[in-house]
Amino acid sequence: MPLPSASNSLTIRIKYTNKVGNLAMLTEAIAKAGGSIGAVDLVEVSPKQIIRDLTIDCVDSHHEESIVQAIRDLPGVEVVNVSDRTFLMHLGGKIEVKCKAPLARRDDLSMAYTPGVARISSAIAEDPKKAFALTIKQNTVAVVTDGSAVLGLGNVGPLAAMPVMEGKAMLFKEFGGVNAFPICLSTQEPKEIIAAVKAIAPGFGGINLEDIAAPKCFEIEDTLRAELDIPVFHDDQHGTAAVALAALINAARIVKKELPSMKVVVLGAGAAGVACTKAFLGAGIADVIVCDRAGSIYRGRGESMNPAKEWLAQNTNREEFKGSAKHALKGADVFLGVSGPNLIAGEDISTMAHDAIVFSLSNPVPEIMPEDAAPYARIIATGRSDYPNQINNVLCFPGLFKGLLDCSARQVTEEMVIAASQAIASVIRPDELHEDYIVPSVFDSRVAPAVARAVTRVAHASGLARRKPKAAKVFQ
Amino acid sequence: MPLPSASNSLTIRIKYTNKVGNLAMLTEAIAKAGGSIGAVDLVEVSPKQIIRDLTIDCVDSHHEESIVQAIRDLPGVEVVNVSDRTFLMHLGGKIEVKCKAPLARRDDLSMAYTPGVARISSAIAEDPKKAFALTIKQNTVAVVTDGSAVLGLGNVGPLAAMPVMEGKAMLFKEFGGVNAFPICLSTQEPKEIIAAVKAIAPGFGGINLEDIAAPKCFEIEDTLRAELDIPVFHDDQHGTAAVALAALINAARIVKKELPSMKVVVLGAGAAGVACTKAFLGAGIADVIVCDRAGSIYRGRGESMNPAKEWLAQNTNREEFKGSAKHALKGADVFLGVSGPNLIAGEDISTMAHDAIVFSLSNPVPEIMPEDAAPYARIIATGRSDYPNQINNVLCFPGLFKGLLDCSARQVTEEMVIAASQAIASVIRPDELHEDYIVPSVFDSRVAPAVARAVTRVAHASGLARRKPKAAKVFQ
Repeated sequence: MPLPSASNSLTIRIKYTNKVGNLAMLTEAIAKAGGSIGAVDLVEVSPKQIIRDLTIDCVDSHHEESIVQAIRDLPGVEVVNVSDRTFLMHLGGKIEVKCKAPLARRDDLSMAYTPGVARISSAIAEDPKKAFALTIKQNTVAVVTDGSAVLGLGNVGPLAAMPVMEGKAMLFKEFGGVNAFPICLSTQEPKEIIAAVKAIAPGFGGINLEDIAAPKCFEIEDTLRAELDIPVFHDDQHGTAAVALAALINAARIVKKELPSMKVVVLGAGAAGVACTKAFLGAGIADVIVCDRAGSIYRGRGESMNPAKEWLAQNTNREEFKGSAKHALKGADVFLGVSGPNLIAGEDISTMAHDAIVFSLSNPVPEIMPEDAAPYARIIATGRSDYPNQINNVLCFPGLFKGLLDCSARQVTEEMVIAASQAIASVIRPDELHEDYIVPSVFDSRVAPAVARAVTRVAHASGLARRKPKAAKVFQ
Repeated sequence: MPLPSASNSLTIRIKYTNKVGNLAMLTEAIAKAGGSIGAVDLVEVSPKQIIRDLTIDCVDSHHEESIVQAIRDLPGVEVVNVSDRTFLMHLGGKIEVKCKAPLARRDDLSMAYTPGVARISSAIAEDPKKAFALTIKQNTVAVVTDGSAVLGLGNVGPLAAMPVMEGKAMLFKEFGGVNAFPICLSTQEPKEIIAAVKAIAPGFGGINLEDIAAPKCFEIEDTLRAELDIPVFHDDQHGTAAVALAALINAARIVKKELPSMKVVVLGAGAAGVACTKAFLGAGIADVIVCDRAGSIYRGRGESMNPAKEWLAQNTNREEFKGSAKHALKGADVFLGVSGPNLIAGEDISTMAHDAIVFSLSNPVPEIMPEDAAPYARIIATGRSDYPNQINNVLCFPGLFKGLLDCSARQVTEEMVIAASQAIASVIRPDELHEDYIVPSVFDSRVAPAVARAVTRVAHASGLARRKPKAAKVFQ
């Protein structure tokens, strides 16, 4: 049973008779209905009656309704108004476009717009790379989706994807200082998605693809990477991979195993599964077995393949294991779940090697709940915020793009993603490392700068940076 | 000779010997070189020397250089640093994306992003029109260009168009409270432009097309209007038309002529010329003659026609006048120039009817300079800020889109544009009207709300509004 949380919270305005004991009656009724009371604000008080706003965390929408009903059922109590705080927060959207300088006087207009702006345009027309210095291209990312695989909701389309992309844009700004703008596409055709992203690319310094279904996401990303001169990053793949690898680096330190010696079983061959596998191989892990609904992926498997799985068949599963994920787990050091809820049982984990590492990332319901894996695993991570070791992409993408934009990088590479992983892992000092602390908190302000520095360093070393760390010539 | 202005201004850091009379020497040298000195700031002073920042308005880039040289030539004076203020203002771009609420705690994350955001997405998936309440679609416009006709610069492409589109986004926010985001396209093919705009449309409540060359702008606008369910507005056409019509409404009041009785000559059959003509006809003017490089446009003219000009041939030039604009002006009440510099002379204006009205909007150099038209015209307007009666689109588009977004309008119509014109004109009270005051100042804060109200009113009356003026149900 999930716990009450802010993501399902109500602010209820209640009017009741001013009589000793009435607030106690109210709070008791709410507690009995399972609501967790937060703020209690006084709105108005008279000798006869009291009006208060009560903020109550609930479990889900049904629970919200039952709590409101429980209050309505009380004698002498009137529910004046019910506001869902999450809906309130979304009214009119969660982000806005702001001017960095005011337009208060005619002089401001003549510099920001005509006639002054014509000199800036001319300077860029003469030397296009000046767009990286003189426009928002310097520090702005498009968050692009077709709405085909939004969170756990599936193919809800571009309009329903907007609140998620706006949320992502908030994370970019708050954690990385990067401007991000949501672009939700009205097409789900790979060719049309590619054409649209290429069309809008000039104004952006990077493209973050988001919540696009596999396997088309691979083709879209590959084509855009080849054809654009700015970094294209599919966060569901590489963001997840970077943070999972960071967690694995620190987990390996705790159990004192070397990455090259480890056997890893990955369940799920979608966007995240393919990218995690590539990152693991890139980080030196020699043996990975990837499984999907049809079981392990191996050379020559006939059924339910696609180009990404063909690549996996060629480059993983060294010993050509044929069978289910459950069987593959025998003797494995690491289980990585990026598939769906409740697919693995405690007894499967019990067959793994000693000091088993279990990353069960399906969200909100993992492949195996931490309490079921605990008897057999030494280190457990999930995608959830209510257990230790949350594998959360926000540890990667804000700092990664900050680093890419700081040097006007042409591309993002596998090497940069691995550098980002190492930077995330290194934020936790060796003496702090613990089975329940293998990745930093999402609120750890050291993470994004560390990731940005690591990414910029690789970009410079590999010749993909277009700008020195501190650029500056202002005079044309 | 243009005057020094803020759009070409420098901040020069100067170090010189601390001696009585040295600042006077400096300022005299700058004045002699034609520079207009603004702020003089003290940076550092010691018994031996003084460092100051001088802000100097110049005429153009060459002038800037000659002023710096004049300072360098002074004895005992060192130029430490020269910053162009317009370039400084553009560093890193002029707009940014901001969060409307902070993400300081885990509760904030769980409402703005997962898991809370999933409820918002689900609500929109069930009822797509909720996107207008729960996302930035409510109050956000895309400012779209292909960079093919940017200001007076011509086809400078999408990167060089960025500073102009960012400036436009600033105007949207500062004057209309509307969020606007620049989308500069890497293609100049009408079909690809149309496809790109359709692809990105879901996240926006309106599309403002900008600086797209004629005649392709007509096809692009027409197709998008037919295929999208949000307003599509080509500002170079209808924004100019709305403000020109507003000016004409007030000019007609001053000269006491009725619109239906007026004869108007339009020089220029590009985006602005076509739109102004349509707005004039829509407002009841019976006789308009449109001229281009080849002379007047009439039924059956063979040379240099296109579909927009065919429409003009069918719907204007009642008496099928054949000849140049200069000849057409004979007896005309109004001249509207939306073409190029210095095409009309004072003697042409002298042939117009009494109380001639001259709108000479080519920018920065008009078809006829106001001082040359003055002996023969009663009322003169230009596109410039340094003469009275500036016809500036910013009087229209911020309020127009504010009105469209306030009611989640499906389309923008000719009727709304004319209503916007009337609203702009009506901001000037009858007793304030004057030959030199026929349009409000761009800083007149009454304009945008008046335009927004007028547009929303028409949208409701014509069944194109999707939302009541004050929407509100929050609880799902």
